Order: sequence, then structure tokens, then C-alpha cells
Amino acid sequence: MTDQPELPNDAVASSRLRHLSRRRFIMASSTGLAGAVVAGPVAAETLADVPPREPGADLSAHSERSKFVKLGRIPEAGPGKRNVDPDNAINSKAPLDKLVGSITPTDLHYERSHSGVPDLDPDKHRLLIHGMVQKPLVLTVDDLRTMPSISRIVFIECTGNGWENWKKADENLTVQHTHGLVSTNEWTGVPLRFLVDLVEKDHESNWMLAEGGDAAGVDRSIPLTDEILNEAFVAYGQNGEPLRPAHGFPMRLIMPGFEGNLNIKWLRRLKFGDQPWMTRWETARYTQLLADGKAEQFQLRMETNSVITSPSGMMEIRPGYNRISGLAWSGHGKITRVDVSTDGANSWKPAQLNNPALPKAQTRFQMDWVWNGKPTKIVSRATDEMGNVQPDRNSFIAQEGTNALFHYHAQQTWSIDTAGRVRNVLA
Amino acid sequence: MTDQPELPNDAVASSRLRHLSRRRFIMASSTGLAGAVVAGPVAAETLADVPPREPGADLSAHSERSKFVKLGRIPEAGPGKRNVDPDNAINSKAPLDKLVGSITPTDLHYERSHSGVPDLDPDKHRLLIHGMVQKPLVLTVDDLRTMPSISRIVFIECTGNGWENWKKADENLTVQHTHGLVSTNEWTGVPLRFLVDLVEKDHESNWMLAEGGDAAGVDRSIPLTDEILNEAFVAYGQNGEPLRPAHGFPMRLIMPGFEGNLNIKWLRRLKFGDQPWMTRWETARYTQLLADGKAEQFQLRMETNSVITSPSGMMEIRPGYNRISGLAWSGHGKITRVDVSTDGANSWKPAQLNNPALPKAQTRFQMDWVWNGKPTKIVSRATDEMGNVQPDRNSFIAQEGTNALFHYHAQQTWSIDTAGRVRNVLA
Repeated sequence: MTDQPELPNDAVASSRLRHLSRRRFIMASSTGLAGAVVAGPVAAETLADVPPREPGADLSAHSERSKFVKLGRIPEAGPGKRNVDPDNAINSKAPLDKLVGSITPTDLHYERSHSGVPDLDPDKHRLLIHGMVQKPLVLTVDDLRTMPSISRIVFIECTGNGWENWKKADENLTVQHTHGLVSTNEWTGVPLRFLVDLVEKDHESNWMLAEGGDAAGVDRSIPLTDEILNEAFVAYGQNGEPLRPAHGFPMRLIMPGFEGNLNIKWLRRLKFGDQPWMTRWETARYTQLLADGKAEQFQLRMETNSVITSPSGMMEIRPGYNRISGLAWSGHGKITRVDVSTDGANSWKPAQLNNPALPKAQTRFQMDWVWNGKPTKIVSRATDEMGNVQPDRNSFIAQEGTNALFHYHAQQTWSIDTAGRVRNVLA
Repeated sequence: MTDQPELPNDAVASSRLRHLSRRRFIMASSTGLAGAVVAGPVAAETLADVPPREPGADLSAHSERSKFVKLGRIPEAGPGKRNVDPDNAINSKAPLDKLVGSITPTDLHYERSHSGVPDLDPDKHRLLIHGMVQKPLVLTVDDLRTMPSISRIVFIECTGNGWENWKKADENLTVQHTHGLVSTNEWTGVPLRFLVDLVEKDHESNWMLAEGGDAAGVDRSIPLTDEILNEAFVAYGQNGEPLRPAHGFPMRLIMPGFEGNLNIKWLRRLKFGDQPWMTRWETARYTQLLADGKAEQFQLRMETNSVITSPSGMMEIRPGYNRISGLAWSGHGKITRVDVSTDGANSWKPAQLNNPALPKAQTRFQMDWVWNGKPTKIVSRATDEMGNVQPDRNSFIAQEGTNALFHYHAQQTWSIDTAGRVRNVLA
């Protein structure tokens, strides 16, 4: 470990690390190698080189984006089916290459829908809670809002995130394509445990069916483990405001750490029982075809994962000082460590994690790096608080085969050629 | 403490508290008192009472709000000057009464500008860092983005927040009017300490001038205490995306815990010196006229504060079960306790805090309450980790007088009459 990460880990970082960081930045900007090609900070004494001040537009009810900022998701028809008619789109990916921090902008949170985006009338919408309970109930949105609530920053990830790279790596993909089916928001709602107690669930009931109010009526069987009973909640809020229609307005299930499609949107029913319902969503779909040809059901937890978002696919970098930045997440809990390799997984250095790393939320990592201009590959590898380490691709394929579509979470490799072009490769 | 708050404090709450909570909710919904006037959950067995499933719109690049959700800020011309031309507006308040959780939606973060909202070209914008430094520099936005960054969830509060209630209480105000000049976002940027080291600030320099690039050119002198050197940063990101123009695009200063106007937007200059510059923003404005007629300068830290956002001004409630919810924050650090009174500050009970309570961020609190239908007053009182307790109005006025405009943070009282009307009162 001759080359420690040098970012202040929190507000009170040691001055030694800061000093190292500053020195490397200056070196990279001023050495012949880097100075020639990196613009970098310019020496100056006065305001002469700074543009004049500008008058502004009127204040308003909403602060819109700058006209200079272009941000949008990519609606897709499925793995490898890009540039489709919105009509045929089934998912819409978050532009991870253009985002910073760990919160995903509300309107850019990834979207995966099976029958488009209904905009339900909250005054008419109802949630039925029934089955093996003593007091079945129908709840309105207002009912939910008068109940005890929690707010929690968590990631949601489509179980198909990463499927682009399972069998091959299209070199023209950005990280939005390869990993854009995961996002992190603050969600607010009523703990499942409160609702379970309210309807007096039978002690024998250990499964719950959650059903959505879109035309597809996605319904999934959820095992009532202690973890799920303690952490799941029925959300009505997202980053401080009511859910957006694409994210389940007026109410959805939030299942921290578990498959995105269990976080049922437009939630209209919770039914309690003592066995899974074997809906088509868990038989025809969302089962995992293993290497030996058998299918696995209810592989529900999202795994330990990470990706470098900058530099990433289709970007170009210059020799000299570069900042590596990315996101790590795990359905098991907190991210405790991310290692980064800048030599194709031959050697690794720990990246700096942003604090606090919240459980089951995306955590930003970063590392500074002076690129010598030679072809190389950069890779990240996450570790979570349960000790799970994100596998390399070969280990992952050896274990899971290539029949499946879901829960791909192998390390992502970006290759960099002599021209500084960053491209998606398998490893 | 016969009546503890009963909300699960985090994912793993004790089942005893959950049981109490459920019992009170059921009681309030089913007793003669409450049952008669509160709709509440309805018993049901089947899907017959739940609306049919709905098809949806196409997937898109952005998830917009539901057509059923109306959310907006209120542009105002200053204290008591509401319903003005946008032309004359100087601030725009966050709709705290309609928000949930602790993150403020990006487009609803409160806004206070002295010369409108410029939308600066990020390719042309520059930040000059000079004065008592060895290596003065001019930085671009891209320069900043290659430097070490931190992301932090913090509140920003206009020093005038609360001024509506300093001298009198207009009973027709909502909490958006009385407290809407505070918001919480995740901000991302470069630690001030890194920039200070980069330009090699002289050891003798203990003040910094920060100047904005709007036509008003707001500039403020900032003392370089260890706390500020450790925590301040130059931000380019807000809730995961580039800053919005109203919030300083392409770069602004973030000063966790300190006056909103120190968080200089459209930042174009940091100048280091060894004494304050005494700009008009800290002489003609943003000084505090004390009870004895003397003016206080550089009262920079925002104080320990809280407000009940629901029920709040201009809402109507019904007898029976109600949920009290609000926000607490302190420029000194974490909120450790919020007490709530439902009898006009005669008796207090601790509210439940949402976890984790982040330092210098808004923290959501809540409590359940069965209202007996008689006139009363509800109040909240925050305590932070430094032991600071939010003062009642009489204590606050006794100390600060009524000459001043800034740093009002006395307890907020809402009165409730027999019709359930919630109104703004002084105490």
C-alpha cells in the first residue's frame, strides 16, 4: 500500500493525507507529462480573467435545470434493444455517468414497468390488506399518511441490471447502459410491521402477496422473514415529495436490499398466506436458469456490486491526473470497502468512501490516479459489512453459467487505449 | 412519561412499542369519539372495493410529477410582502406543509436571491482564488470536478427565516410562510481545505471573502475557523445532478450550519486576507440590531430550531387520532431530541426522531396524538448535541428584543380551535 487514497474521508481529515493529495494534484498538473495535455487551474491575480457578473431571471415556483445541462434516461426495450419506440420501452436507465453524490435525481431514478406508467387518482386509490388476517382492511392514501412513518435512503435495483454484459460486452455501451437500472432515493412510508399488526396477521402466515395497480398487475410472493418484517415499508414519499407516477404514485412497497420488482408500484393489495402464490412473475419470469439447466426461484436479495462511473464507457481521458469515481451497493447492508485496480485487476488499492455509508444505499467511492498514457484496464471491487466480496467475471460465470439473465454483479472492467478511449470489455 | 412516542425508531423497533402504537391507532379509529369523524381504514375482504387496474403512459427520459400533485414555492418580496409580481420577488419559500422525509425536492429548495437567477455558461465561468496566497489560481468547473470531492446532506437556512413572526403573528400564514426559508439537499463538491492547500494560503490569513457572480455580486467575509476549514466546500452538485441555476449553477459555496447568504451562489471569487472586508452585505445588511440599539455583526451560525409541519397553519384537523410531524435542525450539529406539547407548552413529551439524524441536516420528528376536540395549542422544542435548547418566544424576545430581523428561532405555536382550524399564533 504505497499509494493510499488521499481524499479527506469526512469533514475532519488528517492534514497529512490532504497534503499528499494536494502534492499529487499539483505534480500531475505541472509535470511535463501532465502539464502538456491537462488544462488544469490557471495562475492569476485579478478578476480580469473571470467573466463579468450577470443579471438574472425572476424567482419562481420551481427551480428548473440550467439550459446548459442535458440529462435524461434512455428508454429501452430490453437487453441490447436500444433506440426503440417509447411505445415498446420496458425500462428507462439512469444516467450514472453524469450523476454525482449518492442520491439519484427524482426524475432520473431508473424505471422498469410492465405496462407503462399509470397516473392513478390518489383520492380513488385503495390498498386492500387481507388473507390470513383477523381484521382485513382497505386503506386510503390519507390513512397511510396518518400512520407512523419512517424515511430511509436506500437503493432499488432491477434484477436485470448488468444483463448487458452477461454473455458479451458491446464496446459501445456507456455505464448508463450497463448499470443504469439502479438508483438511490429517500423513501418515506409506513413500516410493514405496523400494517401487519394493524390487520392482526395470523401467526401461521409467513408469506405475503403484493400486487400492483397497473394493467400488468405485477404480483410477487414475499417471504415474511424478520429482516423483511423489520425493514419493508409502504411508501408514499420520494425525495421529500409524493411518489412520481413512474415510481408507483400514490403508494408502493419498498423492500430494502431486495429485487426491484418486489418493490411493487401502484400497490393495491397485500395478501397474507402460508405459502408462495407461484404467480407468473415468479414462474415464467424472474426465475434464474442455472448452469445445470435447473431454474432457481426466489433468489430475492440483490448482491454486492460496484461500478466506476467516471471514467467509464465512451468517455475520453487524457494522460496525467484523473479522478476515478464510482458507486457501490449491497443488498446485505453497508459497503465497507471498495478496491480499485488501474492495471487490469493485477493490483488493487482501497478507494475512499464517502461518509456516512448507509445500509442498502449506494455509496460513492473515489481515488486519484495519474495515467501514464499506456493502454490499461480499470476495475472496481466492492466489499460489504457481511464480508461479501464482489466476484470477478470468471468466478461469477464459473458459478452461475451463462443461461441466466438476472443478478449479474461481476466486477466491471473498462479498457483504455492509447488515445484515452474508455470502452466496455468483459475483463 | 406515561405516554411515550410509539414509532419504530429504526428498522428494528421493539415489538412492545409497535404494539402500543397499533393499539392506540385502532382505539382512536374505533372509539365513539374518533370513529364518528375519522374515516380511517375500512374493513374488507376482497378486491371488489379496490379500483380496477389501469394501463399507463409510455416510458420516458424523465419522470414528471403526477397531475394530481400540486407543489410549488411562493415567491415573495420580503417579510409580509406576499402575492407580489415575480419581478419584485426576493425569496421563494419551500412548501414544508406538503413535504415528507428530510430531503427537499431539488426544484423546491427555498431560494433567496438579490438580483434574480442568472443561468451562467459553465464553459465560460471561472473561479478566482487569490489574495494572501502563494499560488493564485483561476479554476474552471472541469477543474473542480477532477479534484477530491465530498457529498453531504445539510440544511441551508436564510438568516431571515422566521421573520414573519418576530413582531406579530398573522393568523393566516402557513408553515411555508413562517418557516419556508430552510431546506435540505445532498451537496457535492471540493473541500475548502483542499483549495486552501492548493493555492498555499499564507499562514497569517484568517479571513476569506466569497463573492457571487450574479449582478448583485453578494460578497461576504468568512472567518477561517477550524470548523469552517474542515466543513466548507465548493459545490457543483445538488441531489445527484449539477446545481440548478437558482442554487448557484455552476458552483457555490456550502457552509454547513452557517447563514444561508454565506453559501455564496454563482461563486466567482475566493480572496484570502487577515481581516473582514466589511462589505455592504455585512454592514448595511445582515447585521443584527440588538435590544439595546447596538448592531451585531457576524452572527453567522444558524441556531437550534424546529417546527411542526403537520398539522400546521391553515390546515383543519378532526377530533380523534392525529399524527404530529415536523422538522428540527441546528447549525451546531445533530438534533438529539425534540419535545412536543399538545397543551400550549404546559407539558412536554419526547417525539420520535427519524434515524440517522445527520449533523447540520433537517431531522424529521413525529408523535401520535388523540385530540379531544377542545381548543388547544401545539408546540415543538428542539435540542441539539451541544445541549442547545430552542427557546420559547418570551425568553427569546427578552434576550433579543424586537429591533432585529434575523436569526429568529423561537418555538412555533399553532393554535387549534373547536372547529379544528389550525392557526399561527405567537405563543
